[in-house]
Amino acid sequence: MVAELISVGTELLLGNIVNTNASFLAEQCAGLGLSLYFQTVVGDNPGRLEQTLRLALSRADVVILTGGLGPTKDDLTKELVADLTGRPLVEHEHTREQIQRFFDTRKVNADQITENNWKQALIPDGATVVDNANGTAPGLIVPHKEQYIILLPGPPKEMEPMFLEGVAPFLRALEPAVIYSKTVRVCGMGESRVETMIADLVNAQDNPTIATYAKTGCVDMRVTASASSEQEAKQLVRPVVCELQNRFGTHVYSTDEKETLEEAVVSMLRDRGLTVSTAESCTGGLLAARLVNVSGASQVFAEGYITYSNEAKTKLLGVPQDVLRQFGAVSEQTARAMAFGAAAAGSDASVAITGIAGPLGGSDAKPVGTVFIACSVNGSVSVQEYHFDGNREKIRDYSAVSALTLLRNCILDGE
Amino acid sequence: MVAELISVGTELLLGNIVNTNASFLAEQCAGLGLSLYFQTVVGDNPGRLEQTLRLALSRADVVILTGGLGPTKDDLTKELVADLTGRPLVEHEHTREQIQRFFDTRKVNADQITENNWKQALIPDGATVVDNANGTAPGLIVPHKEQYIILLPGPPKEMEPMFLEGVAPFLRALEPAVIYSKTVRVCGMGESRVETMIADLVNAQDNPTIATYAKTGCVDMRVTASASSEQEAKQLVRPVVCELQNRFGTHVYSTDEKETLEEAVVSMLRDRGLTVSTAESCTGGLLAARLVNVSGASQVFAEGYITYSNEAKTKLLGVPQDVLRQFGAVSEQTARAMAFGAAAAGSDASVAITGIAGPLGGSDAKPVGTVFIACSVNGSVSVQEYHFDGNREKIRDYSAVSALTLLRNCILDGE
Repeated sequence: MVAELISVGTELLLGNIVNTNASFLAEQCAGLGLSLYFQTVVGDNPGRLEQTLRLALSRADVVILTGGLGPTKDDLTKELVADLTGRPLVEHEHTREQIQRFFDTRKVNADQITENNWKQALIPDGATVVDNANGTAPGLIVPHKEQYIILLPGPPKEMEPMFLEGVAPFLRALEPAVIYSKTVRVCGMGESRVETMIADLVNAQDNPTIATYAKTGCVDMRVTASASSEQEAKQLVRPVVCELQNRFGTHVYSTDEKETLEEAVVSMLRDRGLTVSTAESCTGGLLAARLVNVSGASQVFAEGYITYSNEAKTKLLGVPQDVLRQFGAVSEQTARAMAFGAAAAGSDASVAITGIAGPLGGSDAKPVGTVFIACSVNGSVSVQEYHFDGNREKIRDYSAVSALTLLRNCILDGE
Repeated sequence: MVAELISVGTELLLGNIVNTNASFLAEQCAGLGLSLYFQTVVGDNPGRLEQTLRLALSRADVVILTGGLGPTKDDLTKELVADLTGRPLVEHEHTREQIQRFFDTRKVNADQITENNWKQALIPDGATVVDNANGTAPGLIVPHKEQYIILLPGPPKEMEPMFLEGVAPFLRALEPAVIYSKTVRVCGMGESRVETMIADLVNAQDNPTIATYAKTGCVDMRVTASASSEQEAKQLVRPVVCELQNRFGTHVYSTDEKETLEEAVVSMLRDRGLTVSTAESCTGGLLAARLVNVSGASQVFAEGYITYSNEAKTKLLGVPQDVLRQFGAVSEQTARAMAFGAAAAGSDASVAITGIAGPLGGSDAKPVGTVFIACSVNGSVSVQEYHFDGNREKIRDYSAVSALTLLRNCILDGE
């Protein structure tokens, strides 16, 4: 079954807000086994909205529109759909009561409620209403010939629960096939290399499908199967996931789409009863911040140092002045000394990063993007040299991801 | 002149990522005086991409496509555009050299570079190339009859600088009217409040227009005028900008759209010969990382502490154990002690953050989102209590922005 999304709102066309409704609904549709081929954003303009809706109806079984259900004169979606489907607008008593209750709870005086607010109680005759717990506009499921047009409010805090509670169950009942997917997440290699390593599988794919998604310094491979039961779908997915795990070995940091690299690293530390501390120069806190992204990081992480100047490297981490003088702040020797210094406080492991993030500071010997990352685990230190490309932000982001990857590898190597 | 956006990528249709490219480009188009009526997302499918592109060409002067320029077999945008415009793909030597340089810098062996990578050096004959400083796929401006088709890579870190440096100037030259805009950037207040304070100006707007854009903890108000010369356009914009500066006073941290809050703060410190150090708990390095975003931050920032545990707060910052026991890690007293501790090393100013980022750790007395931020400037300390809404990531981001805002205010208050 094919779905299509239409997001209505001039604020989207002006770039005032990011379209999280589309990504939320797209992910939901994928999980429900609906095929989604197009998403469109259109403004509060009746002519263009009608054009877009008619196009969607020419090619999709279910069209989901968000936005344009408010009480102002710019809100046109419902009227348009009523016209197009030939269903006159009739008052829905239950919805009128819901709107009344909404205002009563907020202690709004009757004379402050305008006629515009009451128009939200009108629905296309024959539509199914989805209650709105967080606003006044009801959601609507409008049958149209063999298709469905679903209308939901624009504000995500209203729309998302309404979709989950009132629309998803409806769509689930409509779609016969079950979709199951598993994502194999790898770090330490780029998208091109991953693609080359699985080219044969991708070329042969049918059911399940394999799709790669590049993130900064990491790649996801999502394996998706469709079948008549979840068990069957899982059975189709499993051998492909195993094959990918064989091919990528320890590069695989997770097969849980929701688990980030830092969550995987924190779990790894926690499972082994290891603590880690960080020492950062050019990344300025990005590495520690990633560890702290993880709820529960306190079990493995207690302290981090940002030593942005040479003096700070000596004062906070005990990096000898000679080392800084002889080899420079950005060197294997300094990275090693930073890692020792961070671990000296008592953590089992430490990671240190020192590099040239740019745009200034590069030289022929050490161009912008030169980064040394050192990792110590139970006293055993590894130092790696990297050469990242890109702007200051990119070099720092890649440094943080590579540091997490190196830490992971060092822990595994030590076993 | 009318523009239309097409975002290409199955990962967008599957909801794996949020479409920040569309909102970035939409905002840019608005600033360039282009009218935008439709944005479409379509997958890596040649038939549907062609359908979408043809539809866009039927109604827009400029069509901007992002995505589908990678080195894998799913990347089809360029081939499709070459076909549709009747321009054969030819090798662009400069781009081939750029790709070679990209791999050389990363010390990638020749045998690891696949044929797929080299296909990115092919361009539709007659297209203008926009160099990519952060990746291998070049941007392309392809003339087609009276229109232009612009292709840019999908990854925002590649696309955004390419648009700003290579496409915006091109579009600016195409648009006959001169568009001039100035952005008034405020911190420390939310979008609703800002909109209320300028409602009269927004209602009366004509030329120039005023558009508000909410960022995390900050709001931008962009004033845009269209005229037949830049001087005229500037003259239309200036009085409105002055009015906004009057209304928002010290909340205005910049009128330069390119200047971030952290850049403004670092400049402010540098101009006054002040240094700052940081002490972070729940933000885990996000604040220091923001300062280090700024090239030249070393003039004002040397050291930062991440004291994620109570022990670390005592050990690294000298926060007394009694204070932690009596008031807790998340308290005004602890924040104050952390700020003192960070400044003790010798910096003129310091900022400390301690809070409950969630999802765990909240209580009735101190719910998730409770954050204390302390700022000391030349020995004088301010502590503020905040209550942020949202998930762990949002609470931490808001904390970092609020810390920069508080630092700014404390410096100004001291004058």
